[in-house]
Formats: sequence, C-alpha cells, structure tokens
Amino acid sequence: MDADDDLLAVDARRLRDDIERNAAFGDIEADEGRGRTVLTGTEPNREAREYLVERLEDAGLDVRIDAVGNVAGRWTPESVGVAPETDSDADGDADPAPVAAGSHLDSVPEGGIFDGPLGVYAALEAVRAMQDAGLEPDRPVEVVSFTEEEGQRFASGLLGSSVAVGERSVEDALALEADGVGDREGTVTLESALETIGFRGEGLLDASEWDAWLELHVEQSERLTDAGVPVGVVTAITGITHCEATVRGEANHAGATPMGDRTDALAAASEFVLDVERAANEVVAADSETAVGTVGSLDVRPNATNVVPGAVETGVDIRDVDRDAMQELVARAERSLARLERERGVETEFRRPFDLEPTPMSDRVRDAAHDAGERAGIETLDMHSGAAHDTMHVASVTDAGLLFAPSRDGISHNPKEWTDWDDCATATRVLAGALADLAGADLGAE
Amino acid sequence: MDADDDLLAVDARRLRDDIERNAAFGDIEADEGRGRTVLTGTEPNREAREYLVERLEDAGLDVRIDAVGNVAGRWTPESVGVAPETDSDADGDADPAPVAAGSHLDSVPEGGIFDGPLGVYAALEAVRAMQDAGLEPDRPVEVVSFTEEEGQRFASGLLGSSVAVGERSVEDALALEADGVGDREGTVTLESALETIGFRGEGLLDASEWDAWLELHVEQSERLTDAGVPVGVVTAITGITHCEATVRGEANHAGATPMGDRTDALAAASEFVLDVERAANEVVAADSETAVGTVGSLDVRPNATNVVPGAVETGVDIRDVDRDAMQELVARAERSLARLERERGVETEFRRPFDLEPTPMSDRVRDAAHDAGERAGIETLDMHSGAAHDTMHVASVTDAGLLFAPSRDGISHNPKEWTDWDDCATATRVLAGALADLAGADLGAE
Repeated sequence: MDADDDLLAVDARRLRDDIERNAAFGDIEADEGRGRTVLTGTEPNREAREYLVERLEDAGLDVRIDAVGNVAGRWTPESVGVAPETDSDADGDADPAPVAAGSHLDSVPEGGIFDGPLGVYAALEAVRAMQDAGLEPDRPVEVVSFTEEEGQRFASGLLGSSVAVGERSVEDALALEADGVGDREGTVTLESALETIGFRGEGLLDASEWDAWLELHVEQSERLTDAGVPVGVVTAITGITHCEATVRGEANHAGATPMGDRTDALAAASEFVLDVERAANEVVAADSETAVGTVGSLDVRPNATNVVPGAVETGVDIRDVDRDAMQELVARAERSLARLERERGVETEFRRPFDLEPTPMSDRVRDAAHDAGERAGIETLDMHSGAAHDTMHVASVTDAGLLFAPSRDGISHNPKEWTDWDDCATATRVLAGALADLAGADLGAE
Repeated sequence: MDADDDLLAVDARRLRDDIERNAAFGDIEADEGRGRTVLTGTEPNREAREYLVERLEDAGLDVRIDAVGNVAGRWTPESVGVAPETDSDADGDADPAPVAAGSHLDSVPEGGIFDGPLGVYAALEAVRAMQDAGLEPDRPVEVVSFTEEEGQRFASGLLGSSVAVGERSVEDALALEADGVGDREGTVTLESALETIGFRGEGLLDASEWDAWLELHVEQSERLTDAGVPVGVVTAITGITHCEATVRGEANHAGATPMGDRTDALAAASEFVLDVERAANEVVAADSETAVGTVGSLDVRPNATNVVPGAVETGVDIRDVDRDAMQELVARAERSLARLERERGVETEFRRPFDLEPTPMSDRVRDAAHDAGERAGIETLDMHSGAAHDTMHVASVTDAGLLFAPSRDGISHNPKEWTDWDDCATATRVLAGALADLAGADLGAE
C-alpha cells in the first residue's frame, strides 16, 4: 500500500529526529559508525531520560518515574472508559488495563545508537501516529523505558523489568553497587546514582497490570537481511545461562621452567575455549540450529609475558530456545574441564550463576503483529531472539511480544550497529498497527 | 672436606641473617612461603639499599652509588698493588682491575626472598670469607647490586647493568617513567624515584673495567634437584625474544550472532596459544631440549561474557640457548597467525619488540667455578640458564659467569620460591673460591 493511504502513517522524520537527538547523549568518537556510552545514572543517561520525558509530555502523555527509575508515559485517549467493555476494577471507575510498549535507553560501553532507543521512540511514534490518525482505542497506551537493561554499571541486566514484574524487590535493586567505568570505589548504589540524576521516583511500574506488551528492537543478527524481509516477529526468546570457569595451574618463570615441567593455565583454558566453540558448532549441526556458546571474557593471572600463566577466569554464555540443547552445552563445558584436569593437571571450578529458561511469546500479540503487517502491506518473518530483552520478564506476567528491525551485518553493541531509517519507520508502522489493534482501536479504515 | 678444614669458610649464619633481614623489607602476607614486593625507588627498596650499604661498610668496603642507583662496594686489600703484576694504567699507580660479583635487590610484585638478594649477599659473604681467611688477592673485589633488574616498575628489565655496559645511556634510563603499582599518574621517572629514596648517585659503574664478573642466582628450575647436585655452573644464558601478536575479529552479540556468522578473536587466539605450546614441545623433542615458548599474557576486548570477543592481544616469550631453535619458534608463531587469517577470517599482527641473542659464559670464569667446587669438595653441574640475568649484559664487556643454587620445585617469582639455607651457603662457598681464584689469591692452602 502507499504511504499516503496509510491510516497509521508513521512520521519517519520525527522518529529519526528523536533517535538522533538521543544519540548525541554520551556520543563517542568512532572510526566507523556512530557510538555512544550511556551507563545508568551517569550524566548522559540523565540527558537521555530528560529528553524522553520532554518528548512524552510534548505528545500529551502523563509521565511517571518509578522507584527504580523506570519511565512510563501514558496516553489515555478520551475514548477510554466510554467503550462498552472495560477491565474496570471493583469500583467500576478505573481505566481499562493499558497496552504497553517500549525498550531501554542505556547502552553498553561504546554501543550503538539503535539498541534500546529505537524501541522507546518507536513506541512514542506509534502513539503519535494513533493520535494523528484520530484513532479511538478502548485502552490507554503506555510508552516505557526500563532502567539498566544492559546491566553494564550495576552488573544486573534487565533490571528495571525484573522489578516491574516482581522478580526482584525495589530494595534489592536500589542497593546494587556500581562496578563499572569510573566506579572503582564501589560506593555508588543504584539508589544514589538515580538520585544524582533526579530519576529516583516513587511507586512501582507494575507490568502485570498491562493487558499486553510489545517491544521493538534491532535484530542484532542478519536473518532479516538474508531473507529480504523488513520486520521480524519473535516466536520465542532464547534461554540464557552464564557460567564461570576457573582454571588453575602453576605460575612460573617462562624462561627457567622447561616445557615438560609446566602446568600452564592459559594453554588449558585455550583448549576450553575451543571445546566450547566446537560443542556449540556440533549442537547447531545435529540438534538445534539456534544454539550458541561463547567464551566472551578471559582473564589471566599474573598476565605477564615472561610468566607461565598461573590462573585463568573465563565467562561463558550459552543460549538456545531449546532447553535441552542448552543443558547439553553446559554438560560439555563441564566435561571439557574434567578432561583438562586429567590431561593437564590443572584444577578447575565451574559455576552457573545465571540461568533463564527460554521464553515463548504470546500468540495473541504475535497475531496482532502479523495482522498489522498484513494490513500495511509489510512482510513479516517469524524468528527467535538470541538476545535477552526486557520482554523476557514482562512475558512472565502478561501477554508479550517482540518485533525486530534489520541490523546491518548483524552488528550490535558496537558503533557499527546500524538500521536504515526506512527500516526503523517500517518496523514502527507494524508496531503501531499491532498496538492499535491490541488497544481496541477501530482499524476498519485500514 | 670438612667445613672446619675449609680455608674459605663461609659463615652460613651471617649469610642467612643478611638475607632474612633483607626479606623483611617489603614483606607481604603469603598463604604459603615468604614473599616480598620491592619495586625500584619505593620505600622497601630504600630500606633494602640502606641495609646493604650498612653491611658493605661494616665489612670495610668503599661504597659508591652511581647515577642510576647501582650500588658497588669495593674491597681493596693491602695486597693489591704490591703484587708484581698489575693492570695499572699509564701512571702506574692505579689499582689493577677488580673482579666483581653481585646481583639485584628489587623483586617482582609478590616475589620470593632469594631471587637477587642471594647473589648480592653471597658476594658480600665471599669477601668476608676471604677477609676472615686472611687471603691476599692481587685484585680488588667489588660487590654489586644492579638497579631495576626485574623491570617491574620502569618496564625495562636488566636496567642497571644495561647502563653499566654502555648499552643504554644514563639519560635514557633516568627518563623512564613508572607504569607499575601505585604509579597511575605516569609522572614518576626513575630519576625522581631514585632521588626520593636518596639513591640517585654520581658517575657510572663501568662494567668494562672489571677483569671478571660472577653472579650467583637461584636456578628457578628443578635440574639441580633432579640431578642431586648443589651448584650449577652456567654454560650459556638463553636468548630471549618477546613477541606481541594481535588477533582481530568482530565484536558482536553473543546471543544474536549465530555460530556460523562469527569471527571470534578469542577462539582464534586460543588456537594461537596452543600452536605456540605445540611448536615448543616439538622443537624440544626434535631439535633443542632447552627451547621454551610461552604465551604469558592475553587481553580480550571487550571482555564481556555476553559479547563475542572482537580483539585479543597476546605477549609471547620465546627462549633458547640455540638461536636457530628460537628462530624456528618465531617462524611457527607467525605461520600460526597466517593460518588463522586463512581459516578463521581474523586479521593479525605480529611484532617482535625485544630480542636478545644467547650469551655464552666465559670459559675462564666457568673453569674458576669448577675448580673452586673441586677444591671444596662440592659437586657442580654444567647447565644453561633459561632466565635472563644482569650477567647477560656484563658478558658483553668482560669475562662473565653465572652460578645457580637449587630452587625448591623450581618455583620463583612467587612467595613459594625457596632455597635451603645450606644450599645458599654451599653455592656461596663455590662463589667465594672462584672469586678468590679470579682475584689472584694464593689458594695453595686449600
């Protein structure tokens, strides 16, 4: 269909302006692309949050900041409450449960400009498009930005949504201590950081009160580009396990210690890295093509050129939408360490501090997304999400869905992350249509 | 022979007291063993240097501190200059060239108590033993402690000896900036650090003026223990190459990037680590049993559990007394990187910032050591040194030798480093006999 005929015309320029304005907060020099570093509770994060609040208010939304800094702007059109059916409470006078959409504004260090902000500003643009179209939905629509999705400063990702679904208490969250860039002293808590930037609010965003939730995010892989489809509709979000493996050998003089007398922790850990990679490749080939296994971090002690490494710590990330495949990868990582103990005489430890089950998305929300694409003449593709998103948490308390926009070369968490502005608008169009549908707007004119 | 009959009786208690007093400076808590951290120009280094000066003066030695903080104490017995033959200069009134011995007092962070101090205090003990025996050598004997042998604070090992042999200028050395523990600002120079502790002296210790040099050091491997021999006589000091290899892949999301779409810099670098290890093992088996190859340092970027590693920097240490074997190991490291470029699509760089040829020891000094062992009834074993020592530099300007005392379990650069006190004394006995011989003392009575 032609854009001129589109009832829910998304203003691509307005969306782009918001994302570009947001990209200036915490922007960094990058050889290629466009990067930013926006850690929770820092000055760039304050600027990004204040700009969002301003834009939400510009669109007539009622803005709340909750106790952990989650930002929500609610559009309650006059049509709400006059519809024959509502989810009113016992008093009979409350608004029906809203539908909500959004994402996050924080970034990884030297991250890209779309990861998070696209979903926040697409949600706002969807509301503005509904307003511009004169839609009269039955339910309020809420635009949400969750705190500390990336977990880069307080070491706990998906933080704001974990509180909003009741998985973590406000007190626990506020007491988290910063361990990131510039926080060597370890005395900055989430609470003090939020107070510093004026975003320690009141009350709690309660995701269980939402009738439905939909997040738009960049895909962070190349499946949409490969398929030539502009919008992905996520079927399930991958399960995630983080493991920590320690390998201990004996630190010793690199010159005076003959090859045969060594217990080199780095050589052993290198076999572990390759074992994890090989296991993932084999599981992909044989059992589940969505499985991934990564040794993302590795720290050597004492880490001097002229000393045989004495100890290595590694961080392992294992994911799949297939729980059995995840368990198989964890088991193979443990078997690798057992082998290294036997064959190389190292001592090893294996911990699994973080484990999330795969999360299927709501059929109702997926249907709304597919229908919106069909109405707007935009092709959509079912696919899984290999990345964690706040939507994982929200899905535990209400019907939730996740949309993807294409990522150039699949790159994210990197200044080279890029989504074409047209693709941003196209995916936002599907988001707007799905939200309008879920909110009970009359879309007969589409 | 019985210690009572020993002309050059070493006072084991006096030697031990000196080493133990020295061990108290910069001593650290250690779960096992006895450690110290004595970085050049720090307070513990000042204490260690002041104690040495006091002990040299107690023994009647003339102490000089040179411009880079090298400490030398000269014993000029009355017999010097009255002997029929001297190396007097044109005026005919100068003393003959001295023989010198010593080592260093600085340590690696959390190092042991023998590495360095044994050689310094053994040299002093050797002089005291000659004095006690009433020996009348033809040459002065100089006890030396070189500055910054470990290179742990000013990032340049064997520093004092490099200046003493003219390989590095005083100005260059003094301008070196601290980059170690507690020196984050980078504004501490060797000159200011030495001035702070009162050891920025005058003039320059000139190793080329020495008739011969002999250093006693801990072995740092297990060959003496394995052979059941108490003293090693080094035939050659290993050549050393330090290489830096960079592996660049593409940092990407660990969840959203399928296994087949990755260019994982850490997985590639892990193959490199194992290739270096394998190459060293094969060269040891086939060509030169003294060869070693170590990837001692490895740094990952961005080093986050949930990010596919984008770049890895490694530090490689390659050594052998056989130059061809060293070159073979370097070539195999480069071939490994070339293979990884082909097979894994990474980009690599290889640099070789540091390269020292193997250094053969002087036959004359080795003979003096063997003879001393024979006279004292102490077995000696020819062996190479896999570690670098100041003696490498000294050997470029005069006849130089190196003795080893056994290291328990071969451990050094670690609080578990240990040499039994009896072994310290036995090796010092050989050092004393060799020095007395080289200094032209009459040893007929031995």
